[in-house]
Amino acid sequence: MTPPKLELGKRRRSLKVELGERAYPIRIGWDTLQDLGPAVVRATRATQVALVTVPEVGRRYGGSVTRSLRAAGLEVHRFEVPDGDATKNLKQAAKLYDAFLAKGMDRTSAVVALGGGMVGDLAGFVAATFLRGIAFVQVPTTLLAMVDASVGGKVGVNLQQGKNLVGAFHQPKLVWIDARVLETMTRRGISAGLAEVIKAAAIRDSTFFRQLEDSIEALQALDPAHLLPVLERACAIKAAVVARDERESGLRKILNFGHTLGHVVEQASGYRGVLHGEAVAMGMVFAAGRSEDLDYAPPGTQARLAALVERAGLPGALPELPRRVYLEGLRVDKKRVGDRISFVVLKRIGRSAVVPLLPAEILPAAFPRRRD
Amino acid sequence: MTPPKLELGKRRRSLKVELGERAYPIRIGWDTLQDLGPAVVRATRATQVALVTVPEVGRRYGGSVTRSLRAAGLEVHRFEVPDGDATKNLKQAAKLYDAFLAKGMDRTSAVVALGGGMVGDLAGFVAATFLRGIAFVQVPTTLLAMVDASVGGKVGVNLQQGKNLVGAFHQPKLVWIDARVLETMTRRGISAGLAEVIKAAAIRDSTFFRQLEDSIEALQALDPAHLLPVLERACAIKAAVVARDERESGLRKILNFGHTLGHVVEQASGYRGVLHGEAVAMGMVFAAGRSEDLDYAPPGTQARLAALVERAGLPGALPELPRRVYLEGLRVDKKRVGDRISFVVLKRIGRSAVVPLLPAEILPAAFPRRRD
Repeated sequence: MTPPKLELGKRRRSLKVELGERAYPIRIGWDTLQDLGPAVVRATRATQVALVTVPEVGRRYGGSVTRSLRAAGLEVHRFEVPDGDATKNLKQAAKLYDAFLAKGMDRTSAVVALGGGMVGDLAGFVAATFLRGIAFVQVPTTLLAMVDASVGGKVGVNLQQGKNLVGAFHQPKLVWIDARVLETMTRRGISAGLAEVIKAAAIRDSTFFRQLEDSIEALQALDPAHLLPVLERACAIKAAVVARDERESGLRKILNFGHTLGHVVEQASGYRGVLHGEAVAMGMVFAAGRSEDLDYAPPGTQARLAALVERAGLPGALPELPRRVYLEGLRVDKKRVGDRISFVVLKRIGRSAVVPLLPAEILPAAFPRRRD
Repeated sequence: MTPPKLELGKRRRSLKVELGERAYPIRIGWDTLQDLGPAVVRATRATQVALVTVPEVGRRYGGSVTRSLRAAGLEVHRFEVPDGDATKNLKQAAKLYDAFLAKGMDRTSAVVALGGGMVGDLAGFVAATFLRGIAFVQVPTTLLAMVDASVGGKVGVNLQQGKNLVGAFHQPKLVWIDARVLETMTRRGISAGLAEVIKAAAIRDSTFFRQLEDSIEALQALDPAHLLPVLERACAIKAAVVARDERESGLRKILNFGHTLGHVVEQASGYRGVLHGEAVAMGMVFAAGRSEDLDYAPPGTQARLAALVERAGLPGALPELPRRVYLEGLRVDKKRVGDRISFVVLKRIGRSAVVPLLPAEILPAAFPRRRD
C-alpha cells in the first residue's frame, strides 16, 4: 500500500495517539502558541495549571503562553527550573511537589511543560506522581522534543548512575506543537532534531524517507510548507508504534534504532560535546552497517542512510574510542536482558527488526573501524 | 440476590482482581509463607528479586521467605528499611534505587514487599518508578495491609506536608496472604485491622456485616476457620470496587468511608497515639451519624455500626478537639475539589454513596458533641 502523498501548505494539522481511554491529540501549527489556552481547558478540564519551563524559554514564550492560558480562564502558576540534564533529578522534582502544594494545587490541576525534552521529562514525572498523577500537556520547543520526547508518555528523571533510571509512563492529555518557535533554535540543534525524523522514516516508512531526501535542505531552513507535514508524519509514526505497544514490551523497541551505540557515545562524553541527535545519527549509520554485515539489509542501505545523515548536517561515524569502552557501555545498557541486547537492525530503508545480540556480535573484533 | 453462604474451614483460598491485562491473584492461606517462591516465579517471571522489609518482620519471617524464594531458583537481595511512616519518603526511595542498581537489577527483576502498609507503599512506589516500573509482589504481614493496602495498586511516599502526596497506581502481580503471621500481632493491631474489614461490609455487603456480628470475637482470636473466609470476602469487596474504578474517578471513593474525619484525627495527633484503623473506626461511627442526620440512612444505622466497632475493641467517638481543628483538617483534604469534599455516607448497613459536601455540612455547628 502506497501512503497518500503528503499534503503541503496546510498551516494546522492534527493527529491522535490511539490509546483507548488515554488517547490524546497532537496539534501541529505555525505561530499558534497564543491559541494554547482554550485547548488546555478542553483537554484537561483544569481550572489551575502549573506552567513549568526553563529561564531562556520562559523569557521568550512564557509571557504569551501565560496570557493565552489566563485568557482561557485558567489560574496560572509559573515555575522555572534550571536548564540542563544535570537538574533533571529527584531533588528538582521534590522542589516542584513543594511548590505545587504551596500554591494549593490539587488533583484537578494540570501541568503544562513548556520546553525541550528535559522539561517535559521532569515536569511529566512530577505530573505522573503528584497526588498519584495529574493531567499534563506537552508544549515542546525543540525539534527533538516535538518529534520524539513529547509523544509516547515516557517521563522520568536521572540518577547519578545514569539517565532516566527513575520514571513512569504517563500520557499527556495534549501535545501542542508551534513549529515557529524553532526559528530561535541553532542550526546544529535543528540538525540534531532531524536525526530522530530520519530515524522514524528509516525504521517504518520508505516513502517518507524519500520525501526527506527530497526536502532535507528546506527542512533545515524551516520552510513551513515542508516542515509541518514532516512533523506530522514523524509524530504519526511514533504515535502508531506507541499505540501498539505503550509500555515497550515489543514493537516499541524499534524506536531505539541508533540509540544503543548512541547512548554509549553520550555516556563516554559525559553528555558534553555531543548532542543526543548527533549520537543517534552516528549510531544509526553504524547499525545500518551491521545490518548489512549480518545479512539483514541489502548492500547500499548504509550508504543511503549515511548520505541523508550527512546532508542533514549530522556526523555519521562513531568516535574511535577503544572497543572495551563500547563493550562496557553495552554491559550497563538499560535494555539488556541477561547477556543479550535488543539491537535494532534495518531490513531495508523503511523496515526494521529487533534482534537479541551479544555485545561481541554488535561490535565486531575489528571495531571501531568503520565498514566501507 | 443473596450472596452464597461463606464456606468455613478451607485452608487455601484464591481470588482474582479483574483488571484486564493487569489482573492478578490474591492467595490467602494459613502457614503458607514457605510456599511463596514458586508463586513469585509464576507471577513475575523474574530471576532476581529484591525482598524489602523492616527489621522486626525480617527477623521473624525474612529467613523462611528468602529460603522459599531461593529454592524456587530466584536470586534474592534483601533490603531492610527503618520501620515507621516517617521514613516512607523520597529519600528512602532514592536509597532503594541506588541499592537496586548496585545489585545489577534490571527491568526483568521484581520487588517483593514483606511487611505492613508502609513497606508495601514504599517498595511499591520504588517498583512503580524504577526503570519506569518493574513487577512487584505484596506479602502483607498486618491485618490492615492484608485487607486494604495490599489490594488496589495505590503506592506512594509521604512529603513533609502530608501523607501519600507522591505516588502512583501500580498493580502488584500477586498478593500473598499468610494469615498465620497475624499470631505475632498485638490485639490492638488486630482490632485496627478489623476496622477496615467492618468498613468493607458497611459500605457494600449487609450479609457480610451480619457475619462479622456473628463472629467478631472469633476473628479477634484469629480462628482460621472464621478468619480465612473473612479475609477473602474483605479482599473481594475491595477488589471488585478497584476493578470497576482503578484510578478512583468515581466508585472507588466509597472506600474512603470513615477516612475523611479519620485522617484529620491522625493528622491532629501527629500520627502518634492513634492507629489508622482506630481513627477510621471513629470516623465511620461519626459518618454513620451524619448519614442519619442528613436523611441518607434510617435511624439505628449508627447504633448498629457503633456496637460492632465497640465489640471489635475499637473507639467509636472522635476526640473532642475544637471544631476549627476539624475544619482546618478538611480544608487541606487531598480529595477536596473546589469547596466541596467527597464525603461517604451510608444509605443503610451494606450500602453507601459519595456526596459532595461543604465542610460546614460535614461538621454541624454543635460539633464535636456526638449525636445520640
